[in-house]
Amino acid sequence: MRSYGRKNEELRQVRITRNYLKYAEGSALIEMGNTKVICAASVEEGVPSWMKGEQRGWVTAEYSLLPRSTHQRNVRDAVRGRVSGRTFEIQRLIGRSLRAVINLESLGERTVWLDCDVLQADGGTRAAAITGAFVALADAMEYLHSGEKIYRFPLTDFVAAISVGMVKGEALLDLSFEEDSRADVDMNIVMTGGGKLVEIQGTAEGKTFSRQELNVLLDLGVKGIQQLISKQRAVLGKISSKVNYQT
Amino acid sequence: MRSYGRKNEELRQVRITRNYLKYAEGSALIEMGNTKVICAASVEEGVPSWMKGEQRGWVTAEYSLLPRSTHQRNVRDAVRGRVSGRTFEIQRLIGRSLRAVINLESLGERTVWLDCDVLQADGGTRAAAITGAFVALADAMEYLHSGEKIYRFPLTDFVAAISVGMVKGEALLDLSFEEDSRADVDMNIVMTGGGKLVEIQGTAEGKTFSRQELNVLLDLGVKGIQQLISKQRAVLGKISSKVNYQT
Amino acid sequence: MRSYGRKNEELRQVRITRNYLKYAEGSALIEMGNTKVICAASVEEGVPSWMKGEQRGWVTAEYSLLPRSTHQRNVRDAVRGRVSGRTFEIQRLIGRSLRAVINLESLGERTVWLDCDVLQADGGTRAAAITGAFVALADAMEYLHSGEKIYRFPLTDFVAAISVGMVKGEALLDLSFEEDSRADVDMNIVMTGGGKLVEIQGTAEGKTFSRQELNVLLDLGVKGIQQLISKQRAVLGKISSKVNYQT
Amino acid sequence: MRSYGRKNEELRQVRITRNYLKYAEGSALIEMGNTKVICAASVEEGVPSWMKGEQRGWVTAEYSLLPRSTHQRNVRDAVRGRVSGRTFEIQRLIGRSLRAVINLESLGERTVWLDCDVLQADGGTRAAAITGAFVALADAMEYLHSGEKIYRFPLTDFVAAISVGMVKGEALLDLSFEEDSRADVDMNIVMTGGGKLVEIQGTAEGKTFSRQELNVLLDLGVKGIQQLISKQRAVLGKISSKVNYQT
Amino acid sequence: MRSYGRKNEELRQVRITRNYLKYAEGSALIEMGNTKVICAASVEEGVPSWMKGEQRGWVTAEYSLLPRSTHQRNVRDAVRGRVSGRTFEIQRLIGRSLRAVINLESLGERTVWLDCDVLQADGGTRAAAITGAFVALADAMEYLHSGEKIYRFPLTDFVAAISVGMVKGEALLDLSFEEDSRADVDMNIVMTGGGKLVEIQGTAEGKTFSRQELNVLLDLGVKGIQQLISKQRAVLGKISSKVNYQT
Amino acid sequence: MRSYGRKNEELRQVRITRNYLKYAEGSALIEMGNTKVICAASVEEGVPSWMKGEQRGWVTAEYSLLPRSTHQRNVRDAVRGRVSGRTFEIQRLIGRSLRAVINLESLGERTVWLDCDVLQADGGTRAAAITGAFVALADAMEYLHSGEKIYRFPLTDFVAAISVGMVKGEALLDLSFEEDSRADVDMNIVMTGGGKLVEIQGTAEGKTFSRQELNVLLDLGVKGIQQLISKQRAVLGKISSKVNYQT
Repeated sequence: MRSYGRKNEELRQVRITRNYLKYAEGSALIEMGNTKVICAASVEEGVPSWMKGEQRGWVTAEYSLLPRSTHQRNVRDAVRGRVSGRTFEIQRLIGRSLRAVINLESLGERTVWLDCDVLQADGGTRAAAITGAFVALADAMEYLHSGEKIYRFPLTDFVAAISVGMVKGEALLDLSFEEDSRADVDMNIVMTGGGKLVEIQGTAEGKTFSRQELNVLLDLGVKGIQQLISKQRAVLGKISSKVNYQT
Repeated sequence: MRSYGRKNEELRQVRITRNYLKYAEGSALIEMGNTKVICAASVEEGVPSWMKGEQRGWVTAEYSLLPRSTHQRNVRDAVRGRVSGRTFEIQRLIGRSLRAVINLESLGERTVWLDCDVLQADGGTRAAAITGAFVALADAMEYLHSGEKIYRFPLTDFVAAISVGMVKGEALLDLSFEEDSRADVDMNIVMTGGGKLVEIQGTAEGKTFSRQELNVLLDLGVKGIQQLISKQRAVLGKISSKVNYQT
Repeated sequence: MRSYGRKNEELRQVRITRNYLKYAEGSALIEMGNTKVICAASVEEGVPSWMKGEQRGWVTAEYSLLPRSTHQRNVRDAVRGRVSGRTFEIQRLIGRSLRAVINLESLGERTVWLDCDVLQADGGTRAAAITGAFVALADAMEYLHSGEKIYRFPLTDFVAAISVGMVKGEALLDLSFEEDSRADVDMNIVMTGGGKLVEIQGTAEGKTFSRQELNVLLDLGVKGIQQLISKQRAVLGKISSKVNYQT
Repeated sequence: MRSYGRKNEELRQVRITRNYLKYAEGSALIEMGNTKVICAASVEEGVPSWMKGEQRGWVTAEYSLLPRSTHQRNVRDAVRGRVSGRTFEIQRLIGRSLRAVINLESLGERTVWLDCDVLQADGGTRAAAITGAFVALADAMEYLHSGEKIYRFPLTDFVAAISVGMVKGEALLDLSFEEDSRADVDMNIVMTGGGKLVEIQGTAEGKTFSRQELNVLLDLGVKGIQQLISKQRAVLGKISSKVNYQT
Repeated sequence: MRSYGRKNEELRQVRITRNYLKYAEGSALIEMGNTKVICAASVEEGVPSWMKGEQRGWVTAEYSLLPRSTHQRNVRDAVRGRVSGRTFEIQRLIGRSLRAVINLESLGERTVWLDCDVLQADGGTRAAAITGAFVALADAMEYLHSGEKIYRFPLTDFVAAISVGMVKGEALLDLSFEEDSRADVDMNIVMTGGGKLVEIQGTAEGKTFSRQELNVLLDLGVKGIQQLISKQRAVLGKISSKVNYQT
Repeated sequence: MRSYGRKNEELRQVRITRNYLKYAEGSALIEMGNTKVICAASVEEGVPSWMKGEQRGWVTAEYSLLPRSTHQRNVRDAVRGRVSGRTFEIQRLIGRSLRAVINLESLGERTVWLDCDVLQADGGTRAAAITGAFVALADAMEYLHSGEKIYRFPLTDFVAAISVGMVKGEALLDLSFEEDSRADVDMNIVMTGGGKLVEIQGTAEGKTFSRQELNVLLDLGVKGIQQLISKQRAVLGKISSKVNYQT
């Protein structure tokens, strides 16, 4: 039996709480077992200077661990005076993933900041951040759309993410921290509601992996993401029907 | 009528949730109206280098606002590459306040980090952080004491804090963000369960204040803090009786 | 007998040298016993970006210790690459204190920088900085007023500051470094010529304090500040009569 | 016809110059068309503090672009005062890739720094850096092994990397800068001599991609890497036969 | 016999490769024995803000050592988060030296960045950087001039630099790293083609030096620089004749 | 007539006040006309890590301008978060100059920090800092020697510095700020009491200079330094006779 008493192909219990924060234009608390991430979407007028005048918007993400989200306390980036390499990688991944399902022209010259702050970290925080940030982003788009600041709903699909990995020769879905630390291969998959891949990042620290193992892991991830997108669809209710699928 | 439909001498609704975080040795979520702060107490063996060999422990605090805890998104300290002056002031205040009610010799050569992270900021975050951090600290002390790592319970009293201020000539208890931004005088008071003062910081940006006004504000603060300490006592239950009052 | 052979309610010898620096619009060297602080007021056209267009000026302060102002050499902030928390607290306090006695509308869209650099530190440097900065500021206002750059003298009162504290149960005025390091309670008081409070910051590191002790300390501080303001008045001569008391 | 007059499945011309630097324990200049990267392997006694006493070594990488390696001059990381997010991602990738083919126990408590400095950047710099760093690392291992500082040759396989991508619906091998900037999908693949995957990072900025497209890209990448490993084998000559394949 | 089997008054073998980089407006690889420096000249429209509107251009330099250019690996400035004092000194020297032979009015409101990156450091890197940067700068001026962006060729003379020093009582030209580390006096001389001095920096760490020794060293440096300028003239070919000597 | 009503070969009025600071082991205020620099020598046990175990001491310098030492207020290095290139150059120069006249073996494993803080800057601050730092250093050595912490007085000669320059074709001694800003050639000379050169740094921003001009400037500088060393000798009184000239 693995962590949380699950089978290999089972997700942990997923809970998404919409509008978790009072002041943000969109927000969600996503819980995957003990992993808990607050995702906030903030809309600002204007875009970064390198995009000015292009009549398109921008979506960017920041990610941080609270010092005691982890088993051992971790030092704040602000205290070390710099954002760590791991943090940079994760926030770039979140930003790219969400930009894959938004029409930046429809957004207009606005920036959406997606702040993903981890309250508790039991593995899979970057995947949870992407899945939760989508919900926050959808609510922020609804805020703009229902407020008639934009005329076309900018989202073009759903997007969610999951981690998978090989542990002692077995392919596991949605790794806990403890499983992740024993994994030979660790992969993060980001996929749309339409089943198209957005990102795939597979890493072997200890052991390499074969093309066949890659396929087993991808199959597992696809199933997990489909369940996450069902959750997003349910929690977003009628906003779900506003998504403008582009063909 | 003032914010939250209160009278001048009334606190906002206070809620303290013990053990809010799974991995910390002690933790609490404190809510004062819409102000919400997570307080985590982390115990580490060892003390800062300037204290080594003194056979005493150390208690220190860090404070941070989540980017979207506020009405407008605020930039992360880590992104600006430095901790702001306001943040420094607040975390030094929290640290001093908690050190006033702990016997550092009983703690032994250990450091307790009090991380106060603001989820939502509607005024009074530094006072809420102190009041909540006391609960987190008490649980961390219980963790050490019941685990027989220390033999004498180190807390020597309760401690809590509240903001008071003069707004249009009226003395108000527990200011909301909107009240605070209109206040002529703004004061933070930190007091023990025994009614002794630990810190008093009164500031006039716009208008100065008289000795008499100072006394009115102090009277108001004392009443508020007494109620907060009753809350702490209730939520801590039987740990409350372990406090070693020193006379 | 206490430091400098004084009684408990006695100030150290105070000396204020006007126009200590050749290039600044206003400047003063203030000496309180061995504590020596250079205060320079620099006038710049324009205000910080967040104030632009409000037709008001701004007053802000910076504070620094020379490396060998102290008994042990202290490392420069510039070498550590950041301003320390203590420095931030002090410069924010100086800025707020001086802004309490200036009409920013009369100043016009100008910034006054108050640079307080400690040549020698024997306790009470932040209080000395405030008292000295007032003299530098007054001369800078005279420079603008006599030069007909402003038409109404902007100062609305005098302001000065002093430290008081409880040492072994006795209330002392104007603590030396050595007294300060033994104090149970340490308080800084900032007050106007009209006897109104601007700031009060009382801190108990070792021991807490009662409302009654607070009052004793305040009484002591008020007397000290009155003497300091007499000194300011004497040294400023006829500029003193330009202060526009607002009622 | 694509860049460098190539077919879709063709590499640019590859040149690897061993021992390009005089002082490094191992070094190589790798050229893939106009992309040129200097890879230096430096051996230091000792390991990072978090590994001390484990009797294993460490391999880590740093990556940097010379300011005028690019079409437009880019600002140095040192001038901006921090390493960029992109740089962090790349140097972490290089480090993980090389650690996949080395037995850290055989290396002993030593650190190997792999410095990859890009003289000229025409796409594919991170892949070139991995391929070139392997050669530098092999020479550094030979330095230790022939110098009898280690008794078992630590490399367990070859490793090389290549970029592939989808441009206007066509799968291309070894993208030039211009092709990369037009790509809908961009993938970096790191593979061993034995055909096992070490890393796979596929990213869709503009357009998402299907499982089938993923497979086409992987097939292409595998062929490219096999050619690169043949080059490494040829240039390393008899050192190639020292690799200790682990089964 | 000294390093490289030379006589005291002999230069090491000098090689200058023009247009070493593909994308820069001008570039050169200069080799003086094992010392190798890439010099790139990048032309940008516009000048620093403090020069705007003066209708003059600006020339500035940056200098860096590759981590393994040296016998022992040196830590990157970007990793330490700041440019070292030594680096600052050198890049200021390079910038001043090249500005001495350019008519900034003829350049127009443009900035030329001279990036000097040391591939291999065997002494004399700052002098080599100046000599090589002149060639890169000349090609960048030719790029502007032949492209008819400027109408008057801005260079007013050649400039080159060399190190000289006293080692065990003997005056040596063009010190290698090993000689430099044993030198009692170390001097860098920058001179124009017309024999005028631009910079002279003589330093005695271990031992002081007399006026007479200064003159011997200067005589030696003058001869070395004359040979270097002959090299520049030869490698630049017909561009050499465009230099506008000002009398 | 030039600045301060002087002839070309005349120094400004020089005043050196010994023991200007109460807590430093040695200190001096040096005034050259309106240029005023506080020089403090602080003795610390121990040496930097790269020197440990060599049984030699170290002398190092730091230099800073007070914000309002200059005509226009300058921003503090600590606020910009880094020490400027100019500051680095100057403090390295001061350190090297003083190390030229001290026997580091006699000093023992101690570090002397020479802090040179400019109160007022009217040109020649780096030269004044060197001349004043020598006096502070001499007193710090006397503190160690008379306290019997060292047995041999470590100073081996006097050292002082002066600026010279060419302004409109005339060679001037000891340039004021205004003269310096008009100079075509600017040179700083550091020389011992025995007439030996320690540093010579000559720079032409606008115009180059000939060997003959160099000699005229050196002659002028030598005379100025001789007068400065007479001043040092007078102010140091009987400590002067302790200098251990090495032949």
